[in-house]
Amino acid sequence: MQKVTCIAPVNIAVIKYWGKSDEDLVLPLNDSLSGTLSTDFMCAKTTISTSPALEVNKFWLNGIEQSFENERLLNCLKEVKRRANQTLPHLNWNISICSENNFPTAAGLASSAAGYACLVSALAALYEIEGDISAIARRGSGSACRSVYGGWVQWCKGASPTGEDSIAKQIAPASHWPQMRVLILVVNDERKKYSSTSGMKRSVETSELLQYRATKIVPQRIEAITKAIINKDFQAFAQITMEDSNQFHAVCLDTFPPCVYMNDTSHAIVDVVHAYNDFKKSNKVAYTFDAGPNACLYLLDSEVEEVLSVIDYVFPPVVNSEGYLKGIPLSKKAITEELKAVFEAKRQNFGALKYVIHTRIGDGPKTLTNPEDHLVDEMGLPKKMC
Amino acid sequence: MQKVTCIAPVNIAVIKYWGKSDEDLVLPLNDSLSGTLSTDFMCAKTTISTSPALEVNKFWLNGIEQSFENERLLNCLKEVKRRANQTLPHLNWNISICSENNFPTAAGLASSAAGYACLVSALAALYEIEGDISAIARRGSGSACRSVYGGWVQWCKGASPTGEDSIAKQIAPASHWPQMRVLILVVNDERKKYSSTSGMKRSVETSELLQYRATKIVPQRIEAITKAIINKDFQAFAQITMEDSNQFHAVCLDTFPPCVYMNDTSHAIVDVVHAYNDFKKSNKVAYTFDAGPNACLYLLDSEVEEVLSVIDYVFPPVVNSEGYLKGIPLSKKAITEELKAVFEAKRQNFGALKYVIHTRIGDGPKTLTNPEDHLVDEMGLPKKMC
Repeated sequence: MQKVTCIAPVNIAVIKYWGKSDEDLVLPLNDSLSGTLSTDFMCAKTTISTSPALEVNKFWLNGIEQSFENERLLNCLKEVKRRANQTLPHLNWNISICSENNFPTAAGLASSAAGYACLVSALAALYEIEGDISAIARRGSGSACRSVYGGWVQWCKGASPTGEDSIAKQIAPASHWPQMRVLILVVNDERKKYSSTSGMKRSVETSELLQYRATKIVPQRIEAITKAIINKDFQAFAQITMEDSNQFHAVCLDTFPPCVYMNDTSHAIVDVVHAYNDFKKSNKVAYTFDAGPNACLYLLDSEVEEVLSVIDYVFPPVVNSEGYLKGIPLSKKAITEELKAVFEAKRQNFGALKYVIHTRIGDGPKTLTNPEDHLVDEMGLPKKMC
Repeated sequence: MQKVTCIAPVNIAVIKYWGKSDEDLVLPLNDSLSGTLSTDFMCAKTTISTSPALEVNKFWLNGIEQSFENERLLNCLKEVKRRANQTLPHLNWNISICSENNFPTAAGLASSAAGYACLVSALAALYEIEGDISAIARRGSGSACRSVYGGWVQWCKGASPTGEDSIAKQIAPASHWPQMRVLILVVNDERKKYSSTSGMKRSVETSELLQYRATKIVPQRIEAITKAIINKDFQAFAQITMEDSNQFHAVCLDTFPPCVYMNDTSHAIVDVVHAYNDFKKSNKVAYTFDAGPNACLYLLDSEVEEVLSVIDYVFPPVVNSEGYLKGIPLSKKAITEELKAVFEAKRQNFGALKYVIHTRIGDGPKTLTNPEDHLVDEMGLPKKMC
């Protein structure tokens, strides 16, 4: 029995991917750009095992067995096998895939990007694939291609009809801007979630603003934010990040029927960030929202304590909520009287936020070599099952 | 003492006005189109009196004295006097203006359109102005120019730098589509209101999508919705109305910092309308939202009772709320079991809506001739004061 275990990171886009030009090949209407988050606090983990004794292909996700007849999964596998070392004895054995996320999927945090980047990394290790694997991860979930690299990553939409040049490339490694921090504010929301895949399809079909954004606005923004990252110009980085998040949600609203991902709490966070930046007379924090109500704040390490004191003041956590602040440990700071005066009128009810994750920019996928790290036992079955 | 009293209607745009090309002349970036609501339930009322004995100009709004040094008011007055019958003995006497709205201004319903249309109608009557007065009302508040006519009204942006051709014109009178009804759902909202004047200025300065909308999208929509109104094609009318409301709010979100006018209750109303139309397999109701959280639903009289049964079910009024349903009287109908099943999962907490106004499309401003209708006494002072 052969076994490979990998972990792969989550990424948070600052220039958003929204809309495909090819549904099957997962080709995007525009380039996108993201920061890869440290796997220390949030990651997907996948063990793939293969043996001639395996009678059928198997797939477990978070301890629950899934159907293997999943088009995205099969597309990835087909592409991996096409590029595999064709002399491997195990190339045609069945496989068992066992995947987990170490962050709650129910939180509405995009898990498919880390999941498919992890799957494809493990498959690439198993079948000894050389070179870029981001185009393979892309077939699983578009934004997964960006989780194949660490640091700051651009997904270039490419021009080839086969999608071979629709790949991710690293703009700068995590070490380039070590002061960068990320706060993820997980928002309480009772509404039914709807999939970003169907939402973006509807946007392509119905929003005239989307076409204009994709062709006229995004190319300039990619150029400008790349320059901001290279120059570690937080002021410009924050401005473009916030503008692009707003425009992505504008396009969602221009969709028919509209896709509404942000809720009143999300908009209250936007308002707090603008008020904080106004108070500081410069952009100290940038918000960005994906296809859900949770906020992701980009900020430098020097600002984290104070910003968190404001967040806790405006969105008071439920009393005695254990584990409310996850990720990089932090000594909590009380809000200053001056900031209290600014934010008093903005205070929300208890419990508007579920919890907060404090993390940083990190590296790409890793292969784990310690046998204890494998998610499956010697039979190829998950060690943990639901 | 000369006295003139007028009433003027509210109008609800189906193709939205958002963004000026000239702040002072109040010239819009795009044409807009609205339905004028009946003055039976919602209107502004203004009495203007003038006498050689008046020592200074005076202005009361809803019983509270206002400064006369209001640029918009002075612009209207100047334009009126330029076009007045210059032989009138009272042309240079001071005036007292007394205005009221018969609907709560706190409700966030746009009162300035009706207010300025009313002011200009009364001034036009007092100074015997001939011809179109919409360009004068426009100087008070852009959308006021559309309240100068009844029925369905287009504000043509015009091409002249003086604004002389930026005027309203009636597309069809109220009698053209007598089945049309309007339900205004007044939403409970604790957030601070911000002015549409400053919001639209910020959109012009920061939203790239606004320019595209104004130049490329709105002209087609004006043409298409005019055709739908002429043909009484509710299906097309509703589609364009909803798309344009969504796009207006999309542009507001694309503004920096974003202008957020709709709240979670507003979006829940959108969701209910789409679910109702899906259930009916055709557009039976259209929503539209102005610069605030309140919904305005356009629908035909045949649908009102059933739609209201759904609204009451999803947004249950606070028990014993007197006068919750205002406007055209209606026998309330219980929701059917079939509709209950569709909407059960969408039910909201009590009191999400403050009240509902049931009204119809109506005529333009009117001059009232009964002396009892005057808002001021023989001294030119308001009969009612706060």
